Amino acid sequence: MPDSSDVTLANRLADAAGEAIRPLFRGQWSEERKADRSFVTEADRAAEAAMRAILDAERPGDGIVGEEYGAVREGSERQWILDPIDGTTSFIAGRPIFGTLIALVESGWPVVGVIDQPILKERWVGRIGAGTTFNGKAARVRTCNALGDAVLGTTSPNLFTGDEIDAFMGLAGSVAEKKIIWGGDCYNYGLLSGGHVDIVCEAGLKLYDFAALVPVVEGAGGTMSDWQGHPLDAESDGRVIALGDPARLDDVLEAMGATSAHHHHDH
Amino acid sequence: MPDSSDVTLANRLADAAGEAIRPLFRGQWSEERKADRSFVTEADRAAEAAMRAILDAERPGDGIVGEEYGAVREGSERQWILDPIDGTTSFIAGRPIFGTLIALVESGWPVVGVIDQPILKERWVGRIGAGTTFNGKAARVRTCNALGDAVLGTTSPNLFTGDEIDAFMGLAGSVAEKKIIWGGDCYNYGLLSGGHVDIVCEAGLKLYDFAALVPVVEGAGGTMSDWQGHPLDAESDGRVIALGDPARLDDVLEAMGATSAHHHHDH
Repeated sequence: MPDSSDVTLANRLADAAGEAIRPLFRGQWSEERKADRSFVTEADRAAEAAMRAILDAERPGDGIVGEEYGAVREGSERQWILDPIDGTTSFIAGRPIFGTLIALVESGWPVVGVIDQPILKERWVGRIGAGTTFNGKAARVRTCNALGDAVLGTTSPNLFTGDEIDAFMGLAGSVAEKKIIWGGDCYNYGLLSGGHVDIVCEAGLKLYDFAALVPVVEGAGGTMSDWQGHPLDAESDGRVIALGDPARLDDVLEAMGATSAHHHHDH
Repeated sequence: MPDSSDVTLANRLADAAGEAIRPLFRGQWSEERKADRSFVTEADRAAEAAMRAILDAERPGDGIVGEEYGAVREGSERQWILDPIDGTTSFIAGRPIFGTLIALVESGWPVVGVIDQPILKERWVGRIGAGTTFNGKAARVRTCNALGDAVLGTTSPNLFTGDEIDAFMGLAGSVAEKKIIWGGDCYNYGLLSGGHVDIVCEAGLKLYDFAALVPVVEGAGGTMSDWQGHPLDAESDGRVIALGDPARLDDVLEAMGATSAHHHHDH
């Protein structure tokens, strides 16, 4: 189980990433396109390198999986999962709603998570069993009594392909018109953890996109699952739901047309 | 023509709106739904009331058109156009990328514009003939040599209906994959004016949504038009294009399938 020294280290990693990112925000940087057609900038690389240097020195036995520099020590039970800039498009466009994501995964389960917005200096930190903080103060989700009251967030309509489009449209149609926020990447999950957003629904996420979100959201009293309502682990398919009020999970799955696959453990 | 006292007054209006909005951000407020199914909060009403009180005292002869409290003195040549919170959904969700919009319109033409983000304390001010500033310093758009290099912003896929969808998809297909930012409302036009975003394309905007944007974008060296390439005035149909590099206008109109309607004045 993670202890407070892991949280202290995760905060140091976020500090180092922020120091690398801030001077490049709205500045000049070169960008390249990766094989998956996403963009990577000097800021992504510098932030990940800064975090890996600390981990190599402080946790030489732990594995590292980073979006930009790949995996080392993949056999280790403890893995640090790093996404230096989640929301590179927002970073490129000068919008301060991207984030640095840091997760500690033990035996495949995310147990510590950090969402850090280095320009606004906003940081959510979650640790399984110890709750979630926002800039050092306890963060809590809010109650949502019906989907019609919910604020729903998602990063882009282009996340969804094939059947995913119908599932998302089913959910979007069940929340109030003009209560959907677009864009935002990891930042929306932070807002959910603070009780400002009720649902985030996305697809196509990689482990480094969602591993850090789970301890943050769940430590604040929310829940995260895949589109069948199952917990997220390192083998998940990248379709994720985050809910501020776990009592709405069946409603969300029903709106997405997925109730038949959901295991009703408690009724 | 507007003079510097109009700009000073517009700044005072933005200050007053920000003072009304900041205490309510991420706080508790009541919300209601208007006839067009958008939401209005206590913050929208308080911010517009604060601005109107100043205008009534300082410019008793000028007209006012506000999103929340309607129009007065509609026959005046000078009209102040107010949108206390453009991006109410972002405000409700706790995202600091909404803005207060203030425009001075003379004989139907926007001549002064303010985009103010009160949480981040970021303010773009444009005055026809005098350029655009960002927090007091000159703001400039950037060059964009081809649509394939462009960052494109738009607030929501739900802005577009009918033929508008095909036109927007044509434009989206001509920019690089993963260089589209979603969400953002007026904030995207501010970023365009600072050289971080190249194109914003939207539909369904009202006069109070776009009037303030024109002096900001054009004062920074960009251009705004409707979807036929015509300048925006009080009678425009709410379909808008903002371009950081005016040289790309024909390319954008062609990508949207609208070149036949564009008047080529200079070739």
